[in-house]
Amino acid sequence: MASTILSRRDLEFLLYEWLDVTSLCSAPRYADHSRETFDAALDTCEKIATELFAPHNKKADANEPHFDGERVHIIAEVAVALKAFNDAGLMAAGQDYDLGGMQLPAVVEKAGFAYFKGANVGTSSYPFLTIGNANLLLAHGSKEQIERFVRPMMTGRFFGTMCLSEPQAGSSLADITTRAEKREEGEFRLFGSKMWISAGEHELSQNIVHLVLARIPGAPAGVKGISLFIVPKFLVNADGSVGERNDVVLAGLNHKMGYRGTTNTLLNFGEGKYQPKGAPGAIGYLVGAENKGLAAMFHMMNEARIGVGLGATVLGYTGYLHALEYARNRPQGRLPESKDPAAAQVPIIAHSDVKRMLLAQKAYVEGALGLCLYCARLVDVERVAQTEKERSEATLLLDILTPIAKSWPSQWCLEANSLAIQVHGGYGYTRDYNVEQFYRDNRLNPIHEGTHGIQALDLLGRKVVIDSGRAFDLLVARIEETLMSARSAEDARVPHFAHALFALVNRLKATTRILHGAGDVRKTLANASTYLEAFGHVVVAWIWLQQALIALRGLNAPSPDLQSSDFYSGKLAACRYFYRFELPKVAPMLDLLDELDTTTLDVKEAWL
Amino acid sequence: MASTILSRRDLEFLLYEWLDVTSLCSAPRYADHSRETFDAALDTCEKIATELFAPHNKKADANEPHFDGERVHIIAEVAVALKAFNDAGLMAAGQDYDLGGMQLPAVVEKAGFAYFKGANVGTSSYPFLTIGNANLLLAHGSKEQIERFVRPMMTGRFFGTMCLSEPQAGSSLADITTRAEKREEGEFRLFGSKMWISAGEHELSQNIVHLVLARIPGAPAGVKGISLFIVPKFLVNADGSVGERNDVVLAGLNHKMGYRGTTNTLLNFGEGKYQPKGAPGAIGYLVGAENKGLAAMFHMMNEARIGVGLGATVLGYTGYLHALEYARNRPQGRLPESKDPAAAQVPIIAHSDVKRMLLAQKAYVEGALGLCLYCARLVDVERVAQTEKERSEATLLLDILTPIAKSWPSQWCLEANSLAIQVHGGYGYTRDYNVEQFYRDNRLNPIHEGTHGIQALDLLGRKVVIDSGRAFDLLVARIEETLMSARSAEDARVPHFAHALFALVNRLKATTRILHGAGDVRKTLANASTYLEAFGHVVVAWIWLQQALIALRGLNAPSPDLQSSDFYSGKLAACRYFYRFELPKVAPMLDLLDELDTTTLDVKEAWL
Repeated sequence: MASTILSRRDLEFLLYEWLDVTSLCSAPRYADHSRETFDAALDTCEKIATELFAPHNKKADANEPHFDGERVHIIAEVAVALKAFNDAGLMAAGQDYDLGGMQLPAVVEKAGFAYFKGANVGTSSYPFLTIGNANLLLAHGSKEQIERFVRPMMTGRFFGTMCLSEPQAGSSLADITTRAEKREEGEFRLFGSKMWISAGEHELSQNIVHLVLARIPGAPAGVKGISLFIVPKFLVNADGSVGERNDVVLAGLNHKMGYRGTTNTLLNFGEGKYQPKGAPGAIGYLVGAENKGLAAMFHMMNEARIGVGLGATVLGYTGYLHALEYARNRPQGRLPESKDPAAAQVPIIAHSDVKRMLLAQKAYVEGALGLCLYCARLVDVERVAQTEKERSEATLLLDILTPIAKSWPSQWCLEANSLAIQVHGGYGYTRDYNVEQFYRDNRLNPIHEGTHGIQALDLLGRKVVIDSGRAFDLLVARIEETLMSARSAEDARVPHFAHALFALVNRLKATTRILHGAGDVRKTLANASTYLEAFGHVVVAWIWLQQALIALRGLNAPSPDLQSSDFYSGKLAACRYFYRFELPKVAPMLDLLDELDTTTLDVKEAWL
Repeated sequence: MASTILSRRDLEFLLYEWLDVTSLCSAPRYADHSRETFDAALDTCEKIATELFAPHNKKADANEPHFDGERVHIIAEVAVALKAFNDAGLMAAGQDYDLGGMQLPAVVEKAGFAYFKGANVGTSSYPFLTIGNANLLLAHGSKEQIERFVRPMMTGRFFGTMCLSEPQAGSSLADITTRAEKREEGEFRLFGSKMWISAGEHELSQNIVHLVLARIPGAPAGVKGISLFIVPKFLVNADGSVGERNDVVLAGLNHKMGYRGTTNTLLNFGEGKYQPKGAPGAIGYLVGAENKGLAAMFHMMNEARIGVGLGATVLGYTGYLHALEYARNRPQGRLPESKDPAAAQVPIIAHSDVKRMLLAQKAYVEGALGLCLYCARLVDVERVAQTEKERSEATLLLDILTPIAKSWPSQWCLEANSLAIQVHGGYGYTRDYNVEQFYRDNRLNPIHEGTHGIQALDLLGRKVVIDSGRAFDLLVARIEETLMSARSAEDARVPHFAHALFALVNRLKATTRILHGAGDVRKTLANASTYLEAFGHVVVAWIWLQQALIALRGLNAPSPDLQSSDFYSGKLAACRYFYRFELPKVAPMLDLLDELDTTTLDVKEAWL
């Protein structure tokens, strides 16, 4: 039976036929790699995800972690799955050889990791938060910090978290109040509370390495006075062994609609339950310079945001595959042209409205997966670029695409999950089937790691204007390159798509100028979410056009087999769906933006 | 504190200022009524809903009914709440005096019932299914059936259900296989299984009156061979007392994502656990004529569909009020024009993106509530019309508006619930707050009582063409009457709205002609869902225009108080939001339809 987590055929299409991932092997960093090693890594991920992550996804949802006041209890299958993940060396899949890593390209690493997120988003949060934490410390930590904290994370002996939000400050990091007092011995003592900390407490690893944003007394107000600290659950002895308990204490678990397999915690730092080294306060170690914590954390946040987008994508993807399987096997009703009630019922996939729902899901999830892998590919270009120009362009593109890669899948692959329920009818709404859980799990993604509205402000308020709009111009240039190829495509449809996208890209340029020429920042930003959504659809239309061009090449190759021919035809059909049903939503949004609409600014609070 | 279930001010605006409900009192049926009796009924509903339904909404969700193999267990608060509902006489609120009813107009009854649905959709399902069942029997049952089964339902001594779907036939009623064998004594014996039966088993009432669709052996195939039966859980003795157990047996409960407070069941009829009157089969009594069951059931289905729309609406409404309260009280961040990090944080309602999310919710839920109450008002016109023309027009309008009243709130008030979560941020995703439950509960509404796709086929395939398109023409005429008033409104905005709506109504007429002129039923119906959605937005834009005109009248009245002035301004702002952000979505949908797009028809199953 075909996998209901991800389509391997599609992954291979995206990685090898479109993103030409094997060409990365010409770089010294990836010289030991080849299609064979990439495929082997994907095989490993698919196998472990299928055999050890997927089977307890529902059980973890129905039996969420509970806190008895002393300890957190998690179903046993989670530790078994994570041990297999660690034993396969996957925690260090993307890391350097000298850290025990496989030095896999990021794009292959993320493609492999997608299996785990699709199989079980709750269990897979533990390693992926750890990897994000480790990557941040590798970039900003000291050599000693890397030895003491990162190395044990690379084998899964320690796990990691990121502690940003506080109960009174979710999106507004400027207002965090956790205090870090400097001690003579170079250590800090932390006091405060952190909210929404995923994987903040458990016994799945020997230790938990919290990365914590806090203020040093006397620091400037706002985001310029935030520093970053390592605060381990247990202090780590000089020989690397786990030592005394630090004063990081679980105050309670959050009970969520979905994502239930991951402990989500309120943590108290320095409340006095423990007195590490005989003094009050949770011991923390400064990462990088004082008051430069936010920039360092954003290193991790960008990775985390693309990770959220990929997670949202794969939840949508697995929902689509479940709906597809159901639709092929569930007989019901007859076609409009044959209403003989004595005739056999048809599988529901034959109904045009079910096809619409399946095509929509396909267009959302395969478009989103393309976008996420495109971004991961840019990370590799950053790492192995031959020229500074190539490297800086990859960084600029990543900067501008990150809010899209985070928000677009969070919105549209959630919609895909809703459609997957709809295809299942009443069965899809029950917990006997899988799709309702995907929908509940996915609803978190427009919230965490920066809400939809925060992504919109990031895109419109920052990313399109930084560096005189260079990132925006570069993205437009890349889209125009694709349009050039598409115009001469040997297929009647593709130039038609190119024509539609060309018009909207030009409109988007004009709209961006109008918004930033408004002369009033309130007006510029009033409809930032609409801008984000219009921009996102344009970007995904571009991703789809690229996929369509590759599919066309495949279809026109000498005698493709029937299975390949169906696959490529499916790509073109999904692209067509996107251009017919989705892209036309953009123009009315741009109309609204061009008029600098003030509906939301004008409404008074008392009117609501 | 203001109610977080419904806005009473808004209900009064809709009922008295817009729908002129007191004018119904000039009809003999409603002659005893007045604004005072209507208000008293609303007071009763608001009080019982607030005090006895809302408080156990979360508890019922977290402690869903369970079946121990013999009995179903339901938390005790449900019976207490339902007793209060029954004791207040609400089960018969809309019924004739001689049935013990209050003879309330349907529009007032539904407005009152909205409080219960918003407070606790699970618990309120029991009486509302019973009322629907009773209404069907009052229209199609014999005098003896009414005496024996309806009277006890009017006091809540018996509850009722509707049993249509079967495990192998959800949307496709043509394919049901439950068998009803005629016995000499005029009774039938039923054999088969029914799926998704809400309130199918419980001990909240002395008896359960199931209305069951089944086939009599030898009946024509398909929907023309379906008959309707009363199948009580317990037989009813001649003196009205509850007698022998009938062979209707709970096979199992369905466990759903939401709507958990209502038992949802798989029922087996005539499987042999009981032998009523010493013979096999569940005893059933034919309602109406043989093979005419579906038409009778559709009498109830139409009522049920508007009920679903109203339920979806009020779930959206209560979510909006919760989000509004949260947004007024949660400080976070600063406005773009004042980024001093030392300044106090503002309540999040001050942020334009939060205002957008609140305005969107307001536009969805108040638009939907207007639509549902407009439909309920048409039921009253059907009942008390002075002329046959007036009556038949009300019926036609109800026919064409029913699929919209069912589907539009199910889609957009679910979206409102998603936005309510988003306004709450991470908190909204937790079970400590209420909004995630509303979202889960509401996700059922696009599925049950005819899926979104079924409503689309009903609208485009049937309702717009029946009787040579009379219903469609009549609706257009009504919209045009509103447009006439709006064009001369003393406000710059309203004629502008009228202009936009006029253009789209004309386009909708043309699109409908094009679709039905396609000459190929597959092409006509291929994009029925898109048609439904475009049509729905046009209808709700019309509802909003009517509300805006009334609000304008209120605003221009001599010296309205500040509170009224804010209320009316809010109506105009929500209308503006709908016309600026929502209505422009229609034109691209009509473009697609006009081109008779075949994307969904062309895709082959193997491509997916």
